[in-house]
This record gives sequence, C-alpha cells and structure tokens, in this order.
Amino acid sequence: MSADTPSVADVGEFGVISRITAGLRQPPSTLLGPGDDAAVIAASDGRVVASTDVLVENVHFRLDWSNPDHVGRKAVAVNLADVAAMGAVPTAVLVGLACPPSTPADVLAGISGGIAAAATAAGAGVVGGDLVGAPQLVISITALGDLGGRAPVTRAGARPGDVVAVTGRIGWSAAGLATLSRGFRSPVAVVAAHRVPEPPYAAGPAAADAGATAMVDVSDGLLADLGHVAAASTVAIDVRSDALELPQKLVDVAAALGADPMRWVLTGGEDHALAATFPGAVPDGWRVIGTVAEGSGVTVDGRPYEGASGWQHWG
Amino acid sequence: MSADTPSVADVGEFGVISRITAGLRQPPSTLLGPGDDAAVIAASDGRVVASTDVLVENVHFRLDWSNPDHVGRKAVAVNLADVAAMGAVPTAVLVGLACPPSTPADVLAGISGGIAAAATAAGAGVVGGDLVGAPQLVISITALGDLGGRAPVTRAGARPGDVVAVTGRIGWSAAGLATLSRGFRSPVAVVAAHRVPEPPYAAGPAAADAGATAMVDVSDGLLADLGHVAAASTVAIDVRSDALELPQKLVDVAAALGADPMRWVLTGGEDHALAATFPGAVPDGWRVIGTVAEGSGVTVDGRPYEGASGWQHWG
Repeated sequence: MSADTPSVADVGEFGVISRITAGLRQPPSTLLGPGDDAAVIAASDGRVVASTDVLVENVHFRLDWSNPDHVGRKAVAVNLADVAAMGAVPTAVLVGLACPPSTPADVLAGISGGIAAAATAAGAGVVGGDLVGAPQLVISITALGDLGGRAPVTRAGARPGDVVAVTGRIGWSAAGLATLSRGFRSPVAVVAAHRVPEPPYAAGPAAADAGATAMVDVSDGLLADLGHVAAASTVAIDVRSDALELPQKLVDVAAALGADPMRWVLTGGEDHALAATFPGAVPDGWRVIGTVAEGSGVTVDGRPYEGASGWQHWG
Repeated sequence: MSADTPSVADVGEFGVISRITAGLRQPPSTLLGPGDDAAVIAASDGRVVASTDVLVENVHFRLDWSNPDHVGRKAVAVNLADVAAMGAVPTAVLVGLACPPSTPADVLAGISGGIAAAATAAGAGVVGGDLVGAPQLVISITALGDLGGRAPVTRAGARPGDVVAVTGRIGWSAAGLATLSRGFRSPVAVVAAHRVPEPPYAAGPAAADAGATAMVDVSDGLLADLGHVAAASTVAIDVRSDALELPQKLVDVAAALGADPMRWVLTGGEDHALAATFPGAVPDGWRVIGTVAEGSGVTVDGRPYEGASGWQHWG
C-alpha cells in the first residue's frame, strides 16, 4: 500500500472514525451524537421505530459496479425504507462497519460520505457506529424513526375490499442489475437505480395519515412482498398486470437484453418502493394495482405467476 | 453436510428466522416485535439511547474457545453495557447476522439463543434483525435504552476534584483470554469471564441517579477508557494502584502463566465494567480508585503507565 493511499490499518480505527465523524451534520433530533458510549435521539412520540439491515460486499453490492458513495447511499436507503414503510419519519442511523485492515481509507471515507449524505437528505442523523476488522466488507445499519402520533402501519392490516397501491419505481433495480451483469454500464438510468435506490420516504407517513391498512417496502420483489402482506393479513391479493406501470425505458432495456420487463416489475427486488393497502381513495402519487379479497396468496390477473418469486440471499 | 445437521442454506433464510423468532419473549416495552418492516419500541422518556457494536469471528470471538450461546451472550453484553454507561435502562436489541450459507443452523440457533437469553435477563427484547450470507460470521447488534427522565451521563462531565470509581470485574476477561491463548480451559472463572462478560447494568442508572458526572464502560481497558473520559472532559485522571482490586484468582492465574495481573487490571479490555466520576460519595457497590484534577491524560500513582494502552482492533 503506497503512502498516498493509506489503508484503514495505516490510519487506525480512531483515525478513520475521526475522519468520518468530523464532517457530520446533525439534525435537531440528535441530542447526543457520535463519540460517547451511546447516542441519544429524540423520540418525542414516546415510541421509536427501529430496523436493521446488513449489506455484504459481493453479495449485496460490488465495488466494481458501484463506487463507495453509492454503497453508502444504498445501505441507508435500504434501512430508511423500512422505517417509512411503518409510517414513520427517519430520525437516525447507526452504522456497523467491518472491513479488512487493508481497505483503503478513502473507500471507507466514500462509504461513510454516502451514508451521511443519504441520511442527511432524509432528515436523519448518523449518530453512532462501530468499525472493526474482518476479512470482508460488511455494512450493518440500524435506522430509527418517529411515528409522530401515527399508529404504525404493519403488514397485517389488509382487509378484503381494500385496494392495493404502490408508489416509487419498481423493476428499475432489476433492470440495472441485469445490465451490469451483462457487462454494460448503461443505460445510466437503470444502472443508477440499481446502485442507489431512491425510496419515496415521505409517502410512508402520508399513506399512514391517509388510512393505509397495511404497508411494506418492496425489497424482495413486488409479488414476494405483497405475499408477506397477504400472509400477515390472512387475505388474498390480486394484481392487475395492466395497472402496473411498464416504463418505456424498461421495455427498451429488456428488448436489448432479451429479457421480460414485466418480470422485473413483478419480481425484481431492491427498488424499495412502497406498497400499501387502502380502504378507499389512495393519496396523490400512489397507483392502484390490485385488490384484496378473502383467501390467501398473491395472483396476477387471477392466476399464480409463473417465475421467480423474488430475491433470495441463499443459493 | 449430513441431513441431521442442516446448514443455514438447507433451512433457508426465512426458516432460520422463524426458528429464531418463534421462542422470543418480549417485554412490555416491545410494542411491535420482529416480523414486520421495522419494530416499534416504547420510548416513554421521549428520548432513546442507541449504540451499535460489531463482533467478527476470529477477531472478537472464536468458536473453538466459546460455544454459540457464549458468543450470543457476549454480543449483547458488549452493547447493553454502552447503554448502561449512559445511565439508561436497556429496552431492545436488533441483530444483524452475516454468516456463510454452510454454517450449521444449530450454530445460528445457539447464537440467537444466547442473544435472547442475555437480552431477556437485562429486560430487553430482541425486536428485529437481518440474516444474510457472507464469507465470515459477523454479528452486529444495536442496543436501545430508556433514560427514564435522567440526564445522559456522557464522558465529558468529569471535573477537577471528582473521584473516579469502578464497579464490576476488571482484568478477568484478559486473564481468561491469556489462559485460552495458552491452550488451557481453566480456571473456569476467568475463562467464563472472557467468554461472557457480565456488565453491572443496573449500576449505570443508579450512578446517574447518584450524580455521576461522567461514565464509560470498560471495553478497551481501564486506562484506555479513563483516557477517553479525560480527553472528553479535558481533565487529568490519576489512578491509585493500591486502590484497585487485585483478586487472588487473577494473582494465581498470572503466577501460573508468568504474567502481570496488575497489567490485566489496568489494560485488559472486554470486561464491560463501569467506570464513573462522582463529585462526592459513590453509590454502594462502587470502589473509589482515583481522582480527577486539572490537566490532561491518565496516570497511575502519579506517573505514566508503562505498557500496552489497551485493546486494539487493528494489528
């Protein structure tokens, strides 16, 4: 390792942490930020929403497909989408980073910068973390949020007669992954969507305010995640394929790659859009794509969908 | 892998998670437990204390030295000690687990069981988590706590004239590590202390109530952690060696291994005892070991301590 690209081991744990925390800007909800045994975050609602997700290099991201800033932003988006899907507003993230001591300090700085930028953009502070040595780069993020007096919107409240609606992009990340997997770096729009999902955070609390009965973020794929809602709510969900948005961009990419764009929309994961059920009218920005009925399972146009059922971490 | 010892890949992510969450008992503070996008935890104080620590196999624990239950318990103790050191009562933990798909499902069940047992014993719920594939076993835990109206006790409040006091075992984990490193499995007391630290959680809030001006958990080593207090508080701390407890057990183990037991007490990490500064009388169970003065740095009997300055993650 040359002197002008110092590694984490060169800079040392505390040196790296100092570099990371020096530039952090904290929102008012951060009552005590990084540097002590623990952080203190406002939870004025009297409850706190919390979710943890772990990203592993070469499983959830590749540093030859994404730069460190992308990786940091994605790690935050994955987590804050879970908070939004409960109807909460993000307040804070805590970051556990494990990496080889040989990791360039600039790579960690890039990841940390992406984490800070994405958290700040969502109104959340980076309030704490831990940095340890490991053979592989692993990023574990815990996101906290505030319900602001709203009842949490679980997966279990969908009722027969509700409509199913979505907001945010769906299928774009899968299109980007397929593009990168084939060795291409464009179209930029789909590749960027895979590198850094942009969940519609504000739509989560807005849906809760509008009476959403169930909500989930689309992380495993639309049908898989609606399957989680159907199972938790003990209802059946039917998606109408002609109600789904099939952007021309996805059609074009699919044509170029010999793929089925509708499969990306129905089963592609990692877009972190929001899907919810509503007893009546849906809020602005949401698209009705199906209905809830008595029964179980998820169908498309009344039939089981043939094809992959969503993203799998194993095998 | 034989059929009677199924791996994580055999059981599948959701199967493993089901096994883990099925037996969980939640305290009243868990308003919504695992299984949804995020958990909801009571934060009746209106603030939440949060801390993250990451443990990596063969860096922070070895499965030939500790069984999976030990590892789970240690991962929780490391985190909840940080919460206690702020003066807060633990309420919840979230668990990020990365492991090779070939990991025996029983190992994960053991770790998860240890996590659940240690959390429950401290009054906290295991409210959520994530399980992903990785080349190495990594455990990231985020602990949450409630201040119950107390002001958080930071590292920055020590003032000249305060006394320095500790509660909990110090040096025992280092003695256990030295014992295991030499290939021994006994004395059981020190080995057990290394495998599963037992932080004095309740002493944290009690110290806050008693007017502690600064507090830290002894994770890096007594001198190193008092150094953090001295730096954050811009004061000098002097430790009197004759005030430190030097248990006969540590003296005996050190004699057998040719080691210096006082060095374990002064620099050994991972006991997760608590050290605090008080303006006057200390609560029951705390031992006064030194004083705070104008200046900077940490001394022992008025002199800099020769020797390792504490636990280092990087070579």
